[in-house]
Amino acid sequence: MIMWKVTERPLLYKPVLVEGLPGIGNVGKMTVEYLIDKLKAKKFAEIYSDHFPYHVFIDKKSTVSLPKNEFYYYKSGKHDIVFLTGDFQSMTPQGHYEVTDAVLKFCKDLGVKRIITVGGYGIEGIPKNPQVLGAVTHEKVMSQFEEPGVKFEDGERVGMIVGASGLLLGLGKLRGFEGICLMGETFSRPMFTDARASKAVLEVISQYFGIPIDMKDMNVKAKELDKAITKAKELEDQMVKKLTKPTDELSYIG
Amino acid sequence: MIMWKVTERPLLYKPVLVEGLPGIGNVGKMTVEYLIDKLKAKKFAEIYSDHFPYHVFIDKKSTVSLPKNEFYYYKSGKHDIVFLTGDFQSMTPQGHYEVTDAVLKFCKDLGVKRIITVGGYGIEGIPKNPQVLGAVTHEKVMSQFEEPGVKFEDGERVGMIVGASGLLLGLGKLRGFEGICLMGETFSRPMFTDARASKAVLEVISQYFGIPIDMKDMNVKAKELDKAITKAKELEDQMVKKLTKPTDELSYIG
Amino acid sequence: MIMWKVTERPLLYKPVLVEGLPGIGNVGKMTVEYLIDKLKAKKFAEIYSDHFPYHVFIDKKSTVSLPKNEFYYYKSGKHDIVFLTGDFQSMTPQGHYEVTDAVLKFCKDLGVKRIITVGGYGIEGIPKNPQVLGAVTHEKVMSQFEEPGVKFEDGERVGMIVGASGLLLGLGKLRGFEGICLMGETFSRPMFTDARASKAVLEVISQYFGIPIDMKDMNVKAKELDKAITKAKELEDQMVKKLTKPTDELSYIG
Amino acid sequence: MIMWKVTERPLLYKPVLVEGLPGIGNVGKMTVEYLIDKLKAKKFAEIYSDHFPYHVFIDKKSTVSLPKNEFYYYKSGKHDIVFLTGDFQSMTPQGHYEVTDAVLKFCKDLGVKRIITVGGYGIEGIPKNPQVLGAVTHEKVMSQFEEPGVKFEDGERVGMIVGASGLLLGLGKLRGFEGICLMGETFSRPMFTDARASKAVLEVISQYFGIPIDMKDMNVKAKELDKAITKAKELEDQMVKKLTKPTDELSYIG
Repeated sequence: MIMWKVTERPLLYKPVLVEGLPGIGNVGKMTVEYLIDKLKAKKFAEIYSDHFPYHVFIDKKSTVSLPKNEFYYYKSGKHDIVFLTGDFQSMTPQGHYEVTDAVLKFCKDLGVKRIITVGGYGIEGIPKNPQVLGAVTHEKVMSQFEEPGVKFEDGERVGMIVGASGLLLGLGKLRGFEGICLMGETFSRPMFTDARASKAVLEVISQYFGIPIDMKDMNVKAKELDKAITKAKELEDQMVKKLTKPTDELSYIG
Repeated sequence: MIMWKVTERPLLYKPVLVEGLPGIGNVGKMTVEYLIDKLKAKKFAEIYSDHFPYHVFIDKKSTVSLPKNEFYYYKSGKHDIVFLTGDFQSMTPQGHYEVTDAVLKFCKDLGVKRIITVGGYGIEGIPKNPQVLGAVTHEKVMSQFEEPGVKFEDGERVGMIVGASGLLLGLGKLRGFEGICLMGETFSRPMFTDARASKAVLEVISQYFGIPIDMKDMNVKAKELDKAITKAKELEDQMVKKLTKPTDELSYIG
Repeated sequence: MIMWKVTERPLLYKPVLVEGLPGIGNVGKMTVEYLIDKLKAKKFAEIYSDHFPYHVFIDKKSTVSLPKNEFYYYKSGKHDIVFLTGDFQSMTPQGHYEVTDAVLKFCKDLGVKRIITVGGYGIEGIPKNPQVLGAVTHEKVMSQFEEPGVKFEDGERVGMIVGASGLLLGLGKLRGFEGICLMGETFSRPMFTDARASKAVLEVISQYFGIPIDMKDMNVKAKELDKAITKAKELEDQMVKKLTKPTDELSYIG
Repeated sequence: MIMWKVTERPLLYKPVLVEGLPGIGNVGKMTVEYLIDKLKAKKFAEIYSDHFPYHVFIDKKSTVSLPKNEFYYYKSGKHDIVFLTGDFQSMTPQGHYEVTDAVLKFCKDLGVKRIITVGGYGIEGIPKNPQVLGAVTHEKVMSQFEEPGVKFEDGERVGMIVGASGLLLGLGKLRGFEGICLMGETFSRPMFTDARASKAVLEVISQYFGIPIDMKDMNVKAKELDKAITKAKELEDQMVKKLTKPTDELSYIG
C-alpha cells in the first residue's frame, strides 16, 4: 500500500534526485536535510507506505502525523534538484522494493534521469578527514565525480549498499536511470550523527552542482560531535572497568 | 483479506467515530465497551481480517466465532456516535494499515467526519487521579477538548501513538478526517485493566457529547483494581525475596 | 498463490466435509486418514499453496511431490462425504485464511453445506477413555451430536480452536456453512499420534453418518501407543536422573 | 514483484533447463557455473525479485547491480541447454514459490520440457568418491540416468529437497514439466564449496548430454579443497583444546 500526498507539480529543468534517508552515521539524512535547509528547498510531496512503522508521531503543536518520506525541490542554474528524505526506511525487504519502485515512477514523471544517493561507510576508528567513496550505475558517471574528489575503489572495501541508497540505483538502472552513491567515511557506532562525513559529501555535491553551501552550522555540529565522542569514550572506559572487576554476586548466579 | 458482516445501514446525524481497542492498561477497549453498555448502543457491523489471529473462540453457547472488530451506533442529540471495539488489533504492521484503511472507508460511507480514539499512556507509579492527554489531527480540534480538561503537552511526554488509535488519526488525516486521541494516564504493567484511567476518559467524552454516563459500575471496577494491585504487590515482594536468597540448587544448575 | 489439481468432478448427494489435518496428538489427520482407508474413499483433488513449506518430498519410487492438502470423496447412503487431509497446515496466519477461503469456495461448488472438523484437545495426564468435546457454528447443530456422545462444555475448558479446524468453521459460518469441531481428549505431548482419541472421534462419526467403521487396525495402533508411552516415560526418568546429578563439568562450564 | 531483463530471445532445439543455485556444499552453483564457463554459454536473461536481498553489490568497475538470477544458453547437438544460476535464492517461502513460478513460465515460452536441478546432499564424514543421488518427477525419467551412474534410493536417505532445486521439479510437475534433481554427496559444513561433489555431478551431466567437459580446473579446485579441509581441521582441534581447558576467567564470567 503506497499513498501519496502531492501538493505541487513543479516544472523542473533536467532535475537530479538527491536522496538521504536514515542509515549508517545518519550521513544521508543529515546531508540532505542540511541542503534543504540552506537552499530553502520547497516541499511538494510526501510518500506513505504500510511498510513504514504503524504509529503516528506527536509534534510540538500536539498534532499527529504518519511516518513518511518527503520530496523537496530546488531550482538551480545547472540542474534543478529533487530532494528525498524522511525519518524512516521501510521495515521489510519487500517494502524496500515497493517504496523504491514507487519513488522511481514518481521521479520519471518529474523528468529525473540522474540519481545521487547519500550514505555513510563505516570504518574502524574515527576518521578526522573522511573521504567520499563512490559507486555508480554506469562507468561513464564516474568521470564527473572524480574532480570533486570522489574515490572509486572498485568494490575493494565496500562490497554492497543496503537499503534505499542501493536500491534506487539498482532498480533505477533497470528502469533507465543513471546515478551514483556517495558514501562518507564514518565510524561504525550507532547513536551518532557524523557531521564530518556529512560535510565531506556536501563539498562534493556543492562542487558537482556548482552551488555554494554555507558550512558554518555544519562546522558547529562537527564540534558538538567531538565532545559527544569524548564523553562516550569516558563512559565506555568506566563500563569496561566495572565489567572486568570480578564480584561475588556474579560468580554464584553464573 | 478484509471481510465485512453488515447487518444494518443506520442513517446517522453528524456521526463521530469513537474507537477503543486492546492496548496499554486496556483503557481504550474498557472505555468504549462501557459506553456501549451504558448507552445501549446497537451493533450493526463486524470487520474480519487475515491479519487477526488464525483461530476461533468458543463462547458460552459452545458456538465459535472468528476474531473481529465490531461497530455499534448510538443516536444522541448533538452527534450520533459510531463505536469501534473488539478483542484484537492486527498482528502485523501491514495488517494495521489494511484494517485501518478499510475502517476509514466504511466510516466515510456512514458520513463520519470526526474520529475520537481512546488509549492509555503508561507512566511510572500508579496514578490516583489520572489526567487525560490529547493529540489531534488539526490544531483547531484542540479548543473543543480543553474545557473537558484534556491536557495538550505538545509531544513533550508522549512522542508517538502505536496501533489503531494512532493510525486512524494519521491515515484519517490523509483521507480528510479530523480527530483526537484521548490517552488516560495509566501504569505500565500488563495484565491490568485500568478503571481509573478509563473513568477519566469517560468524563471527557461525556462532557464533549453532552451525554451523562452512569459511573457506578466503573467505580466498582476501580475498587477491584485497587485490591488486585495490592495483591500483585504482595506476590512481587515474595518473588523478590525468593530470587535474592542464594540456594544450593541454583548454584550448581547455573 | 493457490494452485489446484482436480482430477474428477464428482456429483455428490448432500455432501458433508470432514477435515483432519496435522495438529495436537495428530488426532485430526489420523482420524480422517483412517476413514479414507477403511471406506476406500477416492482422491479427486489437491490444493497447493505458497504458504506451505518450500520443499518437495521424495517418495518410495524416488519421485518428488510438493506439500499439499488432498480431497477424497465417499458415496454413502445418508450423506456423501468429502474428506480433507494432508501433511501440512499453512506456515503463516495469512496463509491459513487464504487456504481456508479457497477450500470453502471449492466446497461450495461441490454442494457442501455442513462441515465437520476433527482435532485433539490436550489435557493433563493420559486419558484412558477420552471424551469427544464439541464446538459448533450454530446452536441447532448440537442436538444431532448429543446422541453420539459429544460433550458440549460451553467454552469452559476449551477456549479456542487454532488453525484449519477452527477457521473452516469460523470463516465457513460467515460464508453460510454450518458445522462442528470434534475434539478428542489427548495428552499434550508432541511426537505422539493418539489412537485412543482418534477412536473416540471415529465412533462419533460412525454413528452420525450411520456408517460402520472397522476398528481392528485402530485397536492395534492404540496398543502400540501404550508401548511407546511406556518407553518414553522410561527415557524421561533416565534423563531426569542425569540432569539432577551434579557433575564437575557442568559446574565450571555453567 | 518480479522483474525481467531479457537481452535475447534464442531459438532453442529441445532445450533442457539445468539449474544450480547456492545451497549445501554450494554444489549446484559451482556445477552450473563451471558448465557455463567451459561451454562458453551465452547470457540472455536476468530475473529480479523483491524476495531477494534489498541491497546492491559493487563490482570491480565500481558499478552496482541488484541481486539476481541469470539465464545462459548453450547450443549442443542432442539438446540445447538453458542454464539458471545466481548468487541468491529467495529469502522467504512465498518468494521461493513466486520466483520458481516465474522461471517456469519463462522456460515454457522457451520450449523447455525437461528440468535438471543440481544440489548437494550432506552426509557424515568427507566423501572421497561422492555418489550422485537422484529424485525424479516421473518414474520414466530414471532409466535415462541410471547408465550415467545416478543412484535412486527411493527416499530412503534423502527425504526432501529444499528450495529452488525442489520447487522447480515440484511446481514444474504440476505445470507439465518432467525432470530430475542430481544431488552430489557432500559433507555438512557451511563455508565450503565441494569440488568433488560437483565433479561427480558434472560427469553425469556430461554423459547425459553427450558433451565432453574439461575437468582440469575442477581437479585443481578439488586439491585446494583438500588443503582447506586439512587447515580447518587443525583450527578446530586448537579450538577444542582451548575450550576444554578450564580457565579462571571462564569460571567467574559464567
